[in-house]
Amino acid sequence: MAELESYTERETRPQRELIEIDDELMQDIEELVRTRSNFLLLNILQDLYPADIAHILNRLEGDDLEFVFSLLSTETASEVLPELSDESRSFVLQHIAPADLAKMLDGMASDDAADIIGEMTDEAAEQILGTMDVRDSSHVEELLRYDESTAGGIMAKEVAVVDDRATLKNAIRVVRKFARDHRNIYNVYVVDENHLLVGTVALQDLLLYAPNKRIKSIMHDDVISVTTDVDQEEVAKIFQKYDIVSLPVTDTAGKLLGRITVDDIVDVLEEEHEEDVARMVGSDADELERRSPAQVAMLRLPWVLITLVVEMGAVFMVSRFDKTLSQVILLAAFMPIISALSGNTGLQSAAIIVRGLATGHVQLSRWWHPVIRQMQTTFIIGTICGTLLGIVGALWEGNPVFGFVVGFSMLISINISGLIGTVSPMVSKRLGFDPAITAGPFETAFQDVVGITIFLSIATALLRWL
Amino acid sequence: MAELESYTERETRPQRELIEIDDELMQDIEELVRTRSNFLLLNILQDLYPADIAHILNRLEGDDLEFVFSLLSTETASEVLPELSDESRSFVLQHIAPADLAKMLDGMASDDAADIIGEMTDEAAEQILGTMDVRDSSHVEELLRYDESTAGGIMAKEVAVVDDRATLKNAIRVVRKFARDHRNIYNVYVVDENHLLVGTVALQDLLLYAPNKRIKSIMHDDVISVTTDVDQEEVAKIFQKYDIVSLPVTDTAGKLLGRITVDDIVDVLEEEHEEDVARMVGSDADELERRSPAQVAMLRLPWVLITLVVEMGAVFMVSRFDKTLSQVILLAAFMPIISALSGNTGLQSAAIIVRGLATGHVQLSRWWHPVIRQMQTTFIIGTICGTLLGIVGALWEGNPVFGFVVGFSMLISINISGLIGTVSPMVSKRLGFDPAITAGPFETAFQDVVGITIFLSIATALLRWL
Repeated sequence: MAELESYTERETRPQRELIEIDDELMQDIEELVRTRSNFLLLNILQDLYPADIAHILNRLEGDDLEFVFSLLSTETASEVLPELSDESRSFVLQHIAPADLAKMLDGMASDDAADIIGEMTDEAAEQILGTMDVRDSSHVEELLRYDESTAGGIMAKEVAVVDDRATLKNAIRVVRKFARDHRNIYNVYVVDENHLLVGTVALQDLLLYAPNKRIKSIMHDDVISVTTDVDQEEVAKIFQKYDIVSLPVTDTAGKLLGRITVDDIVDVLEEEHEEDVARMVGSDADELERRSPAQVAMLRLPWVLITLVVEMGAVFMVSRFDKTLSQVILLAAFMPIISALSGNTGLQSAAIIVRGLATGHVQLSRWWHPVIRQMQTTFIIGTICGTLLGIVGALWEGNPVFGFVVGFSMLISINISGLIGTVSPMVSKRLGFDPAITAGPFETAFQDVVGITIFLSIATALLRWL
Repeated sequence: MAELESYTERETRPQRELIEIDDELMQDIEELVRTRSNFLLLNILQDLYPADIAHILNRLEGDDLEFVFSLLSTETASEVLPELSDESRSFVLQHIAPADLAKMLDGMASDDAADIIGEMTDEAAEQILGTMDVRDSSHVEELLRYDESTAGGIMAKEVAVVDDRATLKNAIRVVRKFARDHRNIYNVYVVDENHLLVGTVALQDLLLYAPNKRIKSIMHDDVISVTTDVDQEEVAKIFQKYDIVSLPVTDTAGKLLGRITVDDIVDVLEEEHEEDVARMVGSDADELERRSPAQVAMLRLPWVLITLVVEMGAVFMVSRFDKTLSQVILLAAFMPIISALSGNTGLQSAAIIVRGLATGHVQLSRWWHPVIRQMQTTFIIGTICGTLLGIVGALWEGNPVFGFVVGFSMLISINISGLIGTVSPMVSKRLGFDPAITAGPFETAFQDVVGITIFLSIATALLRWL
């Protein structure tokens, strides 16, 4: 059987061990690092998965980090480098010989290599690209041209690709060759003579049919693909919707340029998640990565200062009602509860609409649907809170009118906050801003001003009975 | 070549078309639904991906939804059903003959079938399980026994598995058989005579070596796996860390029970994300799915009422300072800005710590690290905000002491809020609660009370100079 001879009779891959890196093991490793016990350390490290080695390195600093990284083989180092934290990686990159780094980058998937070179200064990047294998460096140079939050910015250039006149046997040969350098093959892409993407074959299908069958007869010819300029969030949605593990990327003419794999999408989802949460509290997802408190303070400060400016409006409004307040000082005591509850309700509505806009549940073309729903919801919440607060207020001051003022103000301001919270993300989106911007501190501060103004206006109108 | 005869020479799968479902197409479809044009509708639907058919069905209601669903073949229906929104699915399930549903469930992956049966009443579930294929229903019954947020609850029973004495040829035969009914094969699992998981082989490796090679000689024998009771968030972390697409699930003895695929993990990440965001504003991720405003109001109300109770503390505190306020009424005007900024800073710190605890950046065993960092950060923010507000206050009232009171109160309350925001998620985690609970409305309300109390106490102490 001639077929057999073409099998790459190489050795099997090194076996790795899955070890949980607990505090005890970490202490042992730190002791070995301190005593510079090369041999014993290598013995531990060579059996670990790259992600676990990266985890250990992330807990070391300075000379220790440099020492342990230098123990790794080029192959292992090229797998560990993309897994390091930004901080550890930037330290390692500064302490590594350019020739060694070039070798590591050659062994890396093009998307990982591009991410790493993208973090370097232009000068350092140019030097490294000049030292790298020509084919690899041209891949990286191409990837660096795309915006890093688009399909082009997250794709890898390495794809298993066959001609549309190929047989299954040809395709299997391509996979074998590809598998020598790359993990994670899920599909073979089929292109025509102009390198236009015309179909895709799942790896499992290569095992299903006779080797002499034409690839064209078994391929899926309506391929789900994206162009390089599609935003990474859109790409993630396509992965979710169609439950796929890899997605080809083409230029606008349909020429195959690369592929995105699901592991990158998992990272995209995490990144977007961190951005959302950070924005809601008025910070930046980078905060997790940065070390210096001064840098973190600078990241947060813009949001805090916006809140400060908006809240100055509340100061101004309250100061205009000084006569009302000086007559019924207990009104001041109910200000915080009214602003807190209406701020909270507004934020709830805003967060739901932001999420709905992201998932497609909320559509701008039918904007009145969510508005009606949210208004009904906040009316129920407002009525319950208003009634409760009204009873408390009436009993506290011993005056039913006082109860009515706080209760009715609560109802009105919760409803207005809900309306603003519902409409403002849609307006933001319509105007081309990120809707999430409205579900943060700005929203809360604005609701504060609105809630307090409503409360004190109603109180002033009914002042003679208070 | 005898080998050739064993290929399943079946027809290729039906080709599907990727069509963007825009408003125009949707209007055409709605028109065809209204006129009950079976033939034309089927013509459109049969070329679409299940996720796109589900998207169309989600936009229909009542009889229209039932009519279009009834047009689908059992095979297509079984692919569409798991993709429907909760609301559409629950409507369809109520209007479908149990015998038809049982057939659809038989054609579904066991994890999807279990999810659907899990949503039904016990009585309906029992009836359906009795009608289903015995093997499929026993799978579903097993899956229903696991908590739905654990590895057991999200795994599927269908795995491609071979004996450890098998050759590659045997394994390829297993894959062929498996591929007849299932998509998404990434690995073949290897078990010993007691069905204990001993290794895994990537699909691509089946193409690399000679068919007569023993599976044992090429398999990875240190398999990453989880037991059924591992929380789904932990499972998602393992997928992220090791960049894998499928993960075997075993019992505590190591017996292979099923596998989890990455598409389910993408859904888990989205679910956790929605939960986090919902919790931060005081709502529930279910809110997106539920239709009735009354139901949504009930989901949000517990959070709103907690805020109300905590804020009653603020009402009480302010009322105790009525003498101070009645003497310097402008103090009331600065209450909202102090509570808003300290609430915001506390929430920022809390969100960062919650995230850090989730990612492992923050470790309870080294709790002082984040505390020191956050205190430095909030000190910088507090100093800047305090100075600005102090200047504004001094100019407004024309009294430097008034400026000192608002500025100094701002500094102190931002720092205390930052400290509470940093420590409380760690305390929650230590006590076994979800740390995210502290990064929501409760936190903000609590900060309100603290901020206002500090402010009015300082003002009272310095009252004679105001």
